[in-house]
Amino acid sequence: MRYGAGFEVPGEWSAVLEQQLAHRSVRGYRAEAVSDETLAALVAAAQSAPTSGNLQLWSVVAVRDDGRRARLAELAGDQQFIVDAPLLLVWLADLARARQVTTEIGSATAEGADFVEAALLSFIDVALAAQNASLAAESLGLGTVFVGAIRNRPLEVAEELGLPPNVFPVFGLTVGHPELGNEAAVKPRLPQQAVLHHEQYALEPQLAHVEAYEELLNAFYATAGLPGSWVKRVAHRFGSVAGLKGREHLRGALRTQGFELR
Amino acid sequence: MRYGAGFEVPGEWSAVLEQQLAHRSVRGYRAEAVSDETLAALVAAAQSAPTSGNLQLWSVVAVRDDGRRARLAELAGDQQFIVDAPLLLVWLADLARARQVTTEIGSATAEGADFVEAALLSFIDVALAAQNASLAAESLGLGTVFVGAIRNRPLEVAEELGLPPNVFPVFGLTVGHPELGNEAAVKPRLPQQAVLHHEQYALEPQLAHVEAYEELLNAFYATAGLPGSWVKRVAHRFGSVAGLKGREHLRGALRTQGFELR
Repeated sequence: MRYGAGFEVPGEWSAVLEQQLAHRSVRGYRAEAVSDETLAALVAAAQSAPTSGNLQLWSVVAVRDDGRRARLAELAGDQQFIVDAPLLLVWLADLARARQVTTEIGSATAEGADFVEAALLSFIDVALAAQNASLAAESLGLGTVFVGAIRNRPLEVAEELGLPPNVFPVFGLTVGHPELGNEAAVKPRLPQQAVLHHEQYALEPQLAHVEAYEELLNAFYATAGLPGSWVKRVAHRFGSVAGLKGREHLRGALRTQGFELR
Repeated sequence: MRYGAGFEVPGEWSAVLEQQLAHRSVRGYRAEAVSDETLAALVAAAQSAPTSGNLQLWSVVAVRDDGRRARLAELAGDQQFIVDAPLLLVWLADLARARQVTTEIGSATAEGADFVEAALLSFIDVALAAQNASLAAESLGLGTVFVGAIRNRPLEVAEELGLPPNVFPVFGLTVGHPELGNEAAVKPRLPQQAVLHHEQYALEPQLAHVEAYEELLNAFYATAGLPGSWVKRVAHRFGSVAGLKGREHLRGALRTQGFELR
């Protein structure tokens, strides 16, 4: 399902691969809560992900309060599934803990944390952690979806969550028990030949694979009654500043929140 | 092992969680190759990770050639395990494919791709994908370790891999069959209370947990005969520009490679 008819399932296989390849976004949730015990398991999975130099430059806020979730839903593109989900995890790039630790043992500054590299370390750390949590949730029968729209109005999100300087909301992840009988299909991706390169990168040979993908994805969207074309979706996002839906102000927001991006 | 003695294993459990919590970095590899079939499985896992708006803003170069791996090892902090590993995956933030697709269907520009938001989308996408690949590799009995040092001299890495504008090496991942009898221990992480917040973020309460972690990690390093202190390691990285090991030039390198970061 991930690649259409032409793909042969690898001979190497595991329960982990099976879970990963079955991934689909879930935006329909039953009211049933996600327990503290389950949350602890998801965070243990997240913390077990690699983290550069063991720096652990991330934190996560678990939002269960209905009012707060509704306010965050409004800030994040007014999306109903954020209201419906019993649990919203807001994943944070966190340089505050590292800065505090650095200056407390006598360093005059934490100058290194002002650089793009520090921000990137925190973005990578939090993404690795969240992907582990998302897969762990799926393995427990829960459904999730990432919420990039948490970056539409990030400073208001920061205020809602009481974030101090040097902590930034990178994305949300809704978690809950999937509504039955309403599962999304596994979404096809680009052929492996378009993203996997051997020894050196090549752009030109990708085009034929993008064309093949366009057809595959059109068929996928047609069965869902949605307008097709991967190419048009990409162009819609990047063809103009308007496609960024407010996120063209992200650099300014990061700086306001203390991420200097030097 | 992930949290020391005080942590109760969650009641919720799965094969995926078991694999995730057993994660450890592997830097010792046997010579045995990683097959094309296994590589296809890892890329399928990577492509099954979520990707914002299905934009798929990443690519990966598989480096098996000994000479190229040796040259990349030298660029990435002269680390021997990169030479020893049979396979080095270099994970790329890829805005080139999206830019090409956008301008080819008649958009005058792909201006949206000039913004920090576009770069962040690609960094998140590639990290989610790589974490799936890494966990998939572990589930097949392979060992991996992320290589952030690929960013020490990123423009030279880009040249070695033939990267066009708008494609940037974010991190490496070595993959191979682990050397037996030489396994690293599971590294303890910060207590959950330091990274997991409920409803709102709080910095001050983390300090006591950082202190407890300092003791736990000191004990861990002592058994490995290594100098301890998480706090000192963090401070070493961020206390001065020198701790960034050349990565203070990352913003300039990104811009040179076409990531405007507007």
